Amino acid sequence: MKQTIQVAIVGVTGYTGMELIRLLDNHPLFELRVVTSRREAGKRLQDIYPHLSGLKFGEMTIDPPDPKHIAEKCSLAFLAVPHGTAMDMAAALYQKGLKVVDLSADFRIRSRETYEKWYALDHSCPHLLGEAVYGLVELYQEEIRQAKLVANPGCYPSSIILGLYPALARDLIDAESLVIDSKSGATGAGRGAREEKLFCEVQDNFRAYALGGAHRHTPEVEQELSRYAGREITVSFNPHLLPVNRGILSTMYAGLKPGVSLQQIRQAYTDSYRHQEWVRILDPGVLPQIKNVRGTMLCDLGLVLDERTRRLIVVSAIDNLCRGASGQALANANLMSGLEVSAGLNLAPLVP
Amino acid sequence: MKQTIQVAIVGVTGYTGMELIRLLDNHPLFELRVVTSRREAGKRLQDIYPHLSGLKFGEMTIDPPDPKHIAEKCSLAFLAVPHGTAMDMAAALYQKGLKVVDLSADFRIRSRETYEKWYALDHSCPHLLGEAVYGLVELYQEEIRQAKLVANPGCYPSSIILGLYPALARDLIDAESLVIDSKSGATGAGRGAREEKLFCEVQDNFRAYALGGAHRHTPEVEQELSRYAGREITVSFNPHLLPVNRGILSTMYAGLKPGVSLQQIRQAYTDSYRHQEWVRILDPGVLPQIKNVRGTMLCDLGLVLDERTRRLIVVSAIDNLCRGASGQALANANLMSGLEVSAGLNLAPLVP
Amino acid sequence: MKQTIQVAIVGVTGYTGMELIRLLDNHPLFELRVVTSRREAGKRLQDIYPHLSGLKFGEMTIDPPDPKHIAEKCSLAFLAVPHGTAMDMAAALYQKGLKVVDLSADFRIRSRETYEKWYALDHSCPHLLGEAVYGLVELYQEEIRQAKLVANPGCYPSSIILGLYPALARDLIDAESLVIDSKSGATGAGRGAREEKLFCEVQDNFRAYALGGAHRHTPEVEQELSRYAGREITVSFNPHLLPVNRGILSTMYAGLKPGVSLQQIRQAYTDSYRHQEWVRILDPGVLPQIKNVRGTMLCDLGLVLDERTRRLIVVSAIDNLCRGASGQALANANLMSGLEVSAGLNLAPLVP
Amino acid sequence: MKQTIQVAIVGVTGYTGMELIRLLDNHPLFELRVVTSRREAGKRLQDIYPHLSGLKFGEMTIDPPDPKHIAEKCSLAFLAVPHGTAMDMAAALYQKGLKVVDLSADFRIRSRETYEKWYALDHSCPHLLGEAVYGLVELYQEEIRQAKLVANPGCYPSSIILGLYPALARDLIDAESLVIDSKSGATGAGRGAREEKLFCEVQDNFRAYALGGAHRHTPEVEQELSRYAGREITVSFNPHLLPVNRGILSTMYAGLKPGVSLQQIRQAYTDSYRHQEWVRILDPGVLPQIKNVRGTMLCDLGLVLDERTRRLIVVSAIDNLCRGASGQALANANLMSGLEVSAGLNLAPLVP
Repeated sequence: MKQTIQVAIVGVTGYTGMELIRLLDNHPLFELRVVTSRREAGKRLQDIYPHLSGLKFGEMTIDPPDPKHIAEKCSLAFLAVPHGTAMDMAAALYQKGLKVVDLSADFRIRSRETYEKWYALDHSCPHLLGEAVYGLVELYQEEIRQAKLVANPGCYPSSIILGLYPALARDLIDAESLVIDSKSGATGAGRGAREEKLFCEVQDNFRAYALGGAHRHTPEVEQELSRYAGREITVSFNPHLLPVNRGILSTMYAGLKPGVSLQQIRQAYTDSYRHQEWVRILDPGVLPQIKNVRGTMLCDLGLVLDERTRRLIVVSAIDNLCRGASGQALANANLMSGLEVSAGLNLAPLVP
Repeated sequence: MKQTIQVAIVGVTGYTGMELIRLLDNHPLFELRVVTSRREAGKRLQDIYPHLSGLKFGEMTIDPPDPKHIAEKCSLAFLAVPHGTAMDMAAALYQKGLKVVDLSADFRIRSRETYEKWYALDHSCPHLLGEAVYGLVELYQEEIRQAKLVANPGCYPSSIILGLYPALARDLIDAESLVIDSKSGATGAGRGAREEKLFCEVQDNFRAYALGGAHRHTPEVEQELSRYAGREITVSFNPHLLPVNRGILSTMYAGLKPGVSLQQIRQAYTDSYRHQEWVRILDPGVLPQIKNVRGTMLCDLGLVLDERTRRLIVVSAIDNLCRGASGQALANANLMSGLEVSAGLNLAPLVP
Repeated sequence: MKQTIQVAIVGVTGYTGMELIRLLDNHPLFELRVVTSRREAGKRLQDIYPHLSGLKFGEMTIDPPDPKHIAEKCSLAFLAVPHGTAMDMAAALYQKGLKVVDLSADFRIRSRETYEKWYALDHSCPHLLGEAVYGLVELYQEEIRQAKLVANPGCYPSSIILGLYPALARDLIDAESLVIDSKSGATGAGRGAREEKLFCEVQDNFRAYALGGAHRHTPEVEQELSRYAGREITVSFNPHLLPVNRGILSTMYAGLKPGVSLQQIRQAYTDSYRHQEWVRILDPGVLPQIKNVRGTMLCDLGLVLDERTRRLIVVSAIDNLCRGASGQALANANLMSGLEVSAGLNLAPLVP
Repeated sequence: MKQTIQVAIVGVTGYTGMELIRLLDNHPLFELRVVTSRREAGKRLQDIYPHLSGLKFGEMTIDPPDPKHIAEKCSLAFLAVPHGTAMDMAAALYQKGLKVVDLSADFRIRSRETYEKWYALDHSCPHLLGEAVYGLVELYQEEIRQAKLVANPGCYPSSIILGLYPALARDLIDAESLVIDSKSGATGAGRGAREEKLFCEVQDNFRAYALGGAHRHTPEVEQELSRYAGREITVSFNPHLLPVNRGILSTMYAGLKPGVSLQQIRQAYTDSYRHQEWVRILDPGVLPQIKNVRGTMLCDLGLVLDERTRRLIVVSAIDNLCRGASGQALANANLMSGLEVSAGLNLAPLVP
């Protein structure tokens, strides 16, 4: 039997922290040893999360975020704190030899300049940018296995990159024509109390925000798509807020290169993801629904040809909280620990 | 004081029928005299709609749909029956001299061939296609005033056309690059009981459907946009289903013509809708939300320039049931009756 | 033509303030002249409420809450500020001769001791407690017409009192056996940003709170029910939080007095509310739904006899924001101003 | 290693069938061999449930419901068909030696007369009523281990019985005063397409139904409560429909017997469920929320004393689809198969 691996969650009070705990509760080898929160230190997890009462981790005491304490108890840490805060904790834990999966944006952008421009702050440990591996498990599995520091992808980028990679990598679409229209559930905005996130403001409502290149996930998407395409790509990324808790559905539009058929497209997607159990290329005529991936690592892709305008339409659906954040972090930790990527992660979707 | 005008609703059991009654309850001059339904004939309105108990029309008896009976009692009729059924009723009432506002698609498409191809049935009264006026009140107000038969616009087309008209009419965008991503509340799918429309299938879910030119509102959108642009336009129209009752938000993307600035765009929109009280051009930085138009005739437009890709993004929000169907039908009836377009229609939105 | 009456809203940034504006927008005689908010003073209403852009009051500037300024401009004020704050403003405006409708709890409880115990603060103007009239329009219409200061009822009490009044006043039920199980939409908790009110905490959830006499509406309910019953009544009032924006449904259980039949009960309710257009006694077999009263002053009552346990079950449904707060405030203002109680308030429900 | 056990689902197209598949996907020893549906026979599971594409059971072919075929392949069957249909299938499979867990009501009521009166049909195999064990796992664990036929409890009764058992069995409350006010998510009404279950009818709504002893779960509740109390009990059971997919919250009111303290009550509940990992007695001041049990077998109980009226209030929350139906069926199958009751069932709740 494999040995257990001691892990920590730094910043346990947000939705990504909650989701990490849900998934670790079901994990065969990771043993949660330390959870931290500056604000809630001293309480038990079940004091702030009554749904954990009586479960495996309910009685755990929340500690203040002390790298020394974490390093004494754990060999791997999940950082579920905001960007800006994560980088310092990552550097401290990295230096102490821990493996780190950072769910913030601090190590996703390889260019320091780009990061500092979009996030409007100085990077405190740019020397680690080269160490960090972008943790999209389908595309960087080998690098992640060797990594000490993984930058867990953003939720929107996860849905977008998985949807566009095959078409871009095989040069089947006109990247300049790309339009990305994404819709996310409200957990994506985090758990901080703000008026605009109140139930009565979101329920029975729908709205666009940060359109036209204003959202910070834009450079992350562009960095990755440019890499696969082999040249600089600028995209129009446009997020919207759905009145649901979980789920992102991205609808992506691009002109087909001359002569490319839908059949070629389908073949490219099937080939690209042949060994990826979580990516499902839906049958012709079937389109993704966010409920079909709820609570899972699945990414459903629908491929449609708009014959009248010669555009390819790719629809992708993921659970922003599981696949787009905490589940993917766990998959990364699996790989970094020599486990199967899917250890503890193959739950069926909760439908309805 | 103006005289009351007797009106009928043919097909009162769907959501558009319900909404017509809500609005007529508040109308100063229209007097609802006949409501029909083949299925529910003989019942009172409040038997099938308990929310109308004790209100103005609650005690009305539902009649079977008999043109002769309607013509004896009324001078104007709203047709809230499905396409295919509406055309025959429209012809019968038209012949008897009634003014008709048809909420179905039967008279929206000027070309008989196009209609028959997209709707897969023969048009029973093609001679009336030339009589029918497309009832988008901002753009055809004068024609509507003279009309005997108005084709009430579809819900998606209403949101799209109002959002694109100024840019296309003034040749400010590249029509070939147009991508339309629309999201609608569930009332848009009507009230027929089907598994996919059950609460448990729609709640906490979001999905795309009829992508890439498969939706029947496509030719309607193209007909109108082509007319304003002065040339044939083919669009990529892509609907999605929101877990809300009311509201459509359309996000529309198009390349800007060389040299066109956002300021010119804003000016074009402001000028186009200067005298239209229901179209609101939102301030820079403010984006439409469907809750802000709930229960009203308002159409909110947000204008954003994606500078990095030189694309104009137009976001439009309407209430699909009021502005996109029954409210617009009432506005058309107002114009056809010599009333102010807004009679009985200037309610403030129900927020939250 | 009647003259317009100048009114103010003190505390315009909460949900009751928003709802007052929606209703005043449709009112024939009240002219909104002053709106106040300490936090948002200096902005226009449409800056904080984009849904008001272009509407009647959108351009109004928000003032700081200054009684002198209000008194110069207005003859009637709605207080939509929290309890504790309202009493001082009420006293100041009352002294300057304004009519005041206070939507807070500060003048609802006639006994100073009871108020101070339940609300845990000293009453700053107990001399006004005797002046204040409890503004439930069906039961105190004559007193309200004469009042200078009206204590607008709480949302839960409105739904409960209307549901129990006929049975208690005619001594048809055993008051000691009363159990009240109420369920409210989330607007009832106000607009302050707190984690527990976030969309992701309320959506897809349902919970009880403040059970067993812990909720501050308890003494208000008991005061009124005791008055109608003619003796002290202690009730078990138990609120729950629904994942909807608007609406309260209260299910109330009480043993029938010996020999009382359901027919007698129905007769008592019909008689009691014979002249009250907003209270609807539903037909046997029909039960209230909160959607049927959305946006209105209606109170739907369902009466059921549980024959097996000889209990009467009364179900009442209201819109907590309109009937349970701002609409009722407007009805009170109507009466205080010599208008019809229903002026501006007879909108049909927004269904669906 | 234990051997796998072949199981069947008869009636796979409803919500309980879907939930059984979700849970079996995660079960260590049950192997799903046959799924049946008269309507969908011949299709694969993923054809009707796209969320199962690529998962363990997605490719399974749906068979028509043939007892012989089922008996050849399986040793245990879950019946997820309507009452009336289930009894015949149960008898056929029972006779062929299969273990049967019937999710319908057909074997829950021990008295044939009571069943036939409430369900308005003749029982076709009354000889099996004595064989059937009522499958509430906390209370009948030993009997279930020996059973060949288990009547899986109803969803409402599960929430109610677990909430009242300790108080009734120890004679701490006045059973005659019991009032039960239950609120259920919409999956409880099943998946058949009916107008009243459409999204637009349920969303943003809340309503009572089948009040005062009209609901068929009433005799089931009374049968069980009477058994624990040791005498005939008649209850007032009153269901309501919540705009959520999953979850039942029951609020139960009963007078305390003289001299009984809340501490005694808490002790009785703690003692009764000391060895039951799924029942959580919440700390004083904490109340159940349906989200805290989503997707699980948990039953959260809150205990409140209304001191002013000397009433005990018990609040219970379960997931109606998992604990109240399919998960409980699986727990029963575990026990009947000699497994741990919790095999495959200890998932953490999906929050948020």
